[in-house]
Amino acid sequence: MSKICLVIGAGAGVGGSVAARFATEGYHAVLCRRSDQEGLDRLVADIKGRGGEATGLLLDATRDGAIEDLVEKVESGIGPIDVVLFNLGAQIGDRPLAKTSLKTFELGWRMATFALFRLASALLPRMEERGKGTLLVTSATAAVRGNRGQHSHAAAMGGRRMLCQSLNAEFSPKGVHVAHVIIDGMIDAPDTVGKLLGEERYRAIQEQMGNGKDEILVPAEIANTYFHIAHQHRSAWTHELDLRPFTSLPWWNH
Amino acid sequence: MSKICLVIGAGAGVGGSVAARFATEGYHAVLCRRSDQEGLDRLVADIKGRGGEATGLLLDATRDGAIEDLVEKVESGIGPIDVVLFNLGAQIGDRPLAKTSLKTFELGWRMATFALFRLASALLPRMEERGKGTLLVTSATAAVRGNRGQHSHAAAMGGRRMLCQSLNAEFSPKGVHVAHVIIDGMIDAPDTVGKLLGEERYRAIQEQMGNGKDEILVPAEIANTYFHIAHQHRSAWTHELDLRPFTSLPWWNH
Amino acid sequence: MSKICLVIGAGAGVGGSVAARFATEGYHAVLCRRSDQEGLDRLVADIKGRGGEATGLLLDATRDGAIEDLVEKVESGIGPIDVVLFNLGAQIGDRPLAKTSLKTFELGWRMATFALFRLASALLPRMEERGKGTLLVTSATAAVRGNRGQHSHAAAMGGRRMLCQSLNAEFSPKGVHVAHVIIDGMIDAPDTVGKLLGEERYRAIQEQMGNGKDEILVPAEIANTYFHIAHQHRSAWTHELDLRPFTSLPWWNH
Amino acid sequence: MSKICLVIGAGAGVGGSVAARFATEGYHAVLCRRSDQEGLDRLVADIKGRGGEATGLLLDATRDGAIEDLVEKVESGIGPIDVVLFNLGAQIGDRPLAKTSLKTFELGWRMATFALFRLASALLPRMEERGKGTLLVTSATAAVRGNRGQHSHAAAMGGRRMLCQSLNAEFSPKGVHVAHVIIDGMIDAPDTVGKLLGEERYRAIQEQMGNGKDEILVPAEIANTYFHIAHQHRSAWTHELDLRPFTSLPWWNH
Repeated sequence: MSKICLVIGAGAGVGGSVAARFATEGYHAVLCRRSDQEGLDRLVADIKGRGGEATGLLLDATRDGAIEDLVEKVESGIGPIDVVLFNLGAQIGDRPLAKTSLKTFELGWRMATFALFRLASALLPRMEERGKGTLLVTSATAAVRGNRGQHSHAAAMGGRRMLCQSLNAEFSPKGVHVAHVIIDGMIDAPDTVGKLLGEERYRAIQEQMGNGKDEILVPAEIANTYFHIAHQHRSAWTHELDLRPFTSLPWWNH
Repeated sequence: MSKICLVIGAGAGVGGSVAARFATEGYHAVLCRRSDQEGLDRLVADIKGRGGEATGLLLDATRDGAIEDLVEKVESGIGPIDVVLFNLGAQIGDRPLAKTSLKTFELGWRMATFALFRLASALLPRMEERGKGTLLVTSATAAVRGNRGQHSHAAAMGGRRMLCQSLNAEFSPKGVHVAHVIIDGMIDAPDTVGKLLGEERYRAIQEQMGNGKDEILVPAEIANTYFHIAHQHRSAWTHELDLRPFTSLPWWNH
Repeated sequence: MSKICLVIGAGAGVGGSVAARFATEGYHAVLCRRSDQEGLDRLVADIKGRGGEATGLLLDATRDGAIEDLVEKVESGIGPIDVVLFNLGAQIGDRPLAKTSLKTFELGWRMATFALFRLASALLPRMEERGKGTLLVTSATAAVRGNRGQHSHAAAMGGRRMLCQSLNAEFSPKGVHVAHVIIDGMIDAPDTVGKLLGEERYRAIQEQMGNGKDEILVPAEIANTYFHIAHQHRSAWTHELDLRPFTSLPWWNH
Repeated sequence: MSKICLVIGAGAGVGGSVAARFATEGYHAVLCRRSDQEGLDRLVADIKGRGGEATGLLLDATRDGAIEDLVEKVESGIGPIDVVLFNLGAQIGDRPLAKTSLKTFELGWRMATFALFRLASALLPRMEERGKGTLLVTSATAAVRGNRGQHSHAAAMGGRRMLCQSLNAEFSPKGVHVAHVIIDGMIDAPDTVGKLLGEERYRAIQEQMGNGKDEILVPAEIANTYFHIAHQHRSAWTHELDLRPFTSLPWWNH
C-alpha cells in the first residue's frame, strides 16, 4: 500500500506542487481545497497522468467537524496518513485597522490557527500511536513580525507559529515531526497570490520576476524542500526554516 | 480634569497595582474585571482611601460588544482615555493536546487575542484623532515560544504579540505608544496565579520565594515599570521588554 | 558616600546624558572617553555646575589593561561601582565586504565585544561579592539582525548581545543586573552620529527631525529609561528592551 | 571537471560526512583540518575508496594568511570552489567568567567569527564574479542565546550569525547562497564532542542515545540536509534552519 500525503489547501501553487512531488515519489496524494472542483480535478488528473495516485476532495476547513471528518475518512477509506501539509493561508492584503472587521479578524484565525489546531487534534494522536508521521506547516513572514496593515494576518500567523512549537514540544519525542516553514517572499501561485493581486498585476510580476529570472518562489522548488524536510532522519530534524528568492530582502533586513 | 487610565483585567495582581500606581500619580483609574464585585470594590476603595480617583466596572470581555460599550461609556462618561492596560491572561496550566478542547482553545483566543483586537478597534482611532495615547499589553513568555502543554496559551499569546507589532506599525507614527511586556516569571498574584496553583501550593511558593526573597514578581514593582514606559518621551519609546525576578532563568536559557 | 556610576563611552550623547542623569540623582559620575579632553572637561564641569559630583578620565578601551586599570582605580580611589554603562559603539557606516579590512573588522570586535568582556571580567566579580550592581549595555539593531554593509558592526554587536545573555545567566542570580538596550533609531549625538554623517548632513537631520519633532532619539530621554532600568526592583528586572522614536520603523518591519 | 566542495573543519563528524556526501555526488572534496594528518588521510582514503575525488590539507585557520592562501591554492590548483562549508567550532565547555581568560575569549572569536570573515573576504568576491556559489556555515544554539558558562562560545557564535546575515544581504542578490545552520543538539562526533566530553562519557552517551535510538545527531544525516540546502533552486533559498534529534528539547523550550 502506498504511503499517504494529505494536502490541506491544494491550489495551483505550493499545495498542488507538494501533492505532485510526493505522488512522484510513490505517495498517494490526497488534495483538499475549498472550492473550484474543476481546478482540483485538473491537479488530480495531472498526477494520475504521470502515473501517480491521487484523490481530490473539496473541504471547507472552517466548517465545524469538516477537518475531523476528513481525517477519519482518509484514514478509514484510503489508509494511515504519513505526511500532512497544512497549507491554508489567511493573507487578505494590507488594510488599516479601521478596515479590518471583527468578522475578518475572526475568519483569519479560523483559517490560519484554529483549523491547524483541529487538524492536529484529529490527526496527531493517531500519528503518536503509530510512533511516526510528519506535519508540515506552510507559514509566512507574518508569523515572525507584524507589519502595518497585517492585523488579521499577523495575529493568525503568530498564533500558528507558537502552536507549531507547542505541538512540536509534545509530539516530537513521540516520533512525529512538526515543521514550520516561513515563506518569506512572493510565490508564483495563481490561485492565491494571483487572486490577491489581480490578474493584470500578477502577470506583470510574473513577466518581470519569473520567466527564468527566479525572483519569485517557484512552487515546485518549494515542494522539493518540503519533501526533503519530510524525509529527514529523526536524529536530525528541522523544526523551522525560511525560504525566499535570492533577490528578496529577508524580513529582518531593511 | 484628571487623565484616565483604563485597566482591563484588574485583579489583585498586576492590573490592580497598575491602577493604584497611576491613581497615585493623579490619574483616574478605571478598573475592569469579569467577576468578584467585592474584590473590585476593595481595590477601588483602597485607591480612594489614599486620595486617588477610581471607578470599578464588571466586564465580560468575551461578550459581543462589551469592550466597545466600555470604551464608549468611559470616554463619554468620565473622559478621554490616556492610557489603557490590556491585562487579560489566558493561562490554563499545562495540558496535553488531548485534554485541550476546541472550546478551550477558542476561549483562549477570545480572551487573549480577539479581546485585544476589539479594544484596539474601539479605542485606537480615538487616540489617533487626539494624536496621543498609550496601549500597554501584559504578555507572557508563551508569546515568544510555545512550550509543551501550552497549545492554547501559546497560540493565543503568539497572536497577541504579532497583533501588537502590527498595531504599533500603524499607530506609533500617529503618536500612539504600543508596548508589549513579556512577563517571564511567576507573579505574586492571588487572583490568577493563586487560583491556577491552588491556595496551598501558592502559599508555599510565596513563603519560599516571596517574603523579601524577591524571587517572584512583585506586582507593585511591575507597575513601576509600566508607569515609566507609559511616560517615555516619544523620541525614545520602548515597544517590547521583558520582566523577571533576578533568580528566574530567562526563557531562552536552559 | 555617594553611589558611583561609571560611564565608558561618555560623549555628548547617550553617555554624557546618562552621567548627568545619575549625577542629578546623587551618584558620583565617572566619565570615560577615548579623546577630546576639552569635551570631557565640559561634561564634567556641566555636572558640577549643577551641584553634582563627577570625574573625567581619558581611556583607550582597546589598550591592554586599560579597562582593568580603570576599574581598579575607580574602586580604590573613589569607591565601589554601583552602576556601569558600557556605551562604546563600533558603527563605521555601511561598507561592502571588499571595503572592510581585516583590521577594521578586528577593531570593531575589540571595541564592541572584547572591551565589554574585559569590563565584565574586571568588575562583575566585585559586584558579585557585594551581591549587587548593574551593568547597562547600549546596543544597536545590528545586534539582532545583520544588514547589508554591516559586516563588522553586526558581527561585533551580535557577539555583544550573546555575551550579555551569558553574563546575565551567570550573574543575575547573584544580584547583578545586566541589561541590553537596543537603540533602534538615530540618536541626536554630535560626537558619534554627527561625526559619522558629517556636520552638514547631521545639521540637516537635526533641523528636519529634531527641533521638537522628536523624530530622533533625545539622549536625555534615553537616560531616563536607563535610570529606570538601573533602579528596577530585583523581583522585576528587564534584560532587554528597545528604544526608538515614534516615527521610526522598528527593525522588524519593512 | 568536477565541481569543488571545500570543507574547513573536516573531522570525523559533520565536516568529514559532508565531504563524503558531496564526493558521492561527484564533487571533488577538499578537506581541511588543523591537525591529525593520519585522521585526515583516513577520511580522504575512504572517499577515494568509494570512487570519489578528495584532497586533504592541514590548516591552522587562526594563522595570518592561512585561509587566504588556502582559497588561492584550491582555486588555482584544483579549480573554482562551488560550495564551501565553514565548520569550525569554538565550544570549550561550560566555564564561569572567572575561568574564561582573555586569551580564551579571543581565540574563540578568532576561530568562530574572524576565520569566517577571512574566508568570506577571500572567497565571496570570486563567487560573486562567477554569479554563483554556496557558503554553508555550521552554527550552534549559542548563536541565538547565551547560556551560563558560554561567555566565549556565545559571543563568538552570536558574531558569526550576524555576520552570516550581513554576508547574505550583500551576496545573495548576486547569486551566492549563504546558509546558517543551527545545530541544536549533541552530535555523534568523536573528534570534537568526543574530545570535549572525554572518551568514557562519550561512549556512554553513544551507547545510551545512539545505536539506533537516534537521540544524537548522526553526521551523515546532517550532511544530507546540507547537500539539499546547497542545491536549492535560487528562487527558494533557505538562509537559516535548525537541526536536532527528535527527543532533544529545542533551545527555546524549558
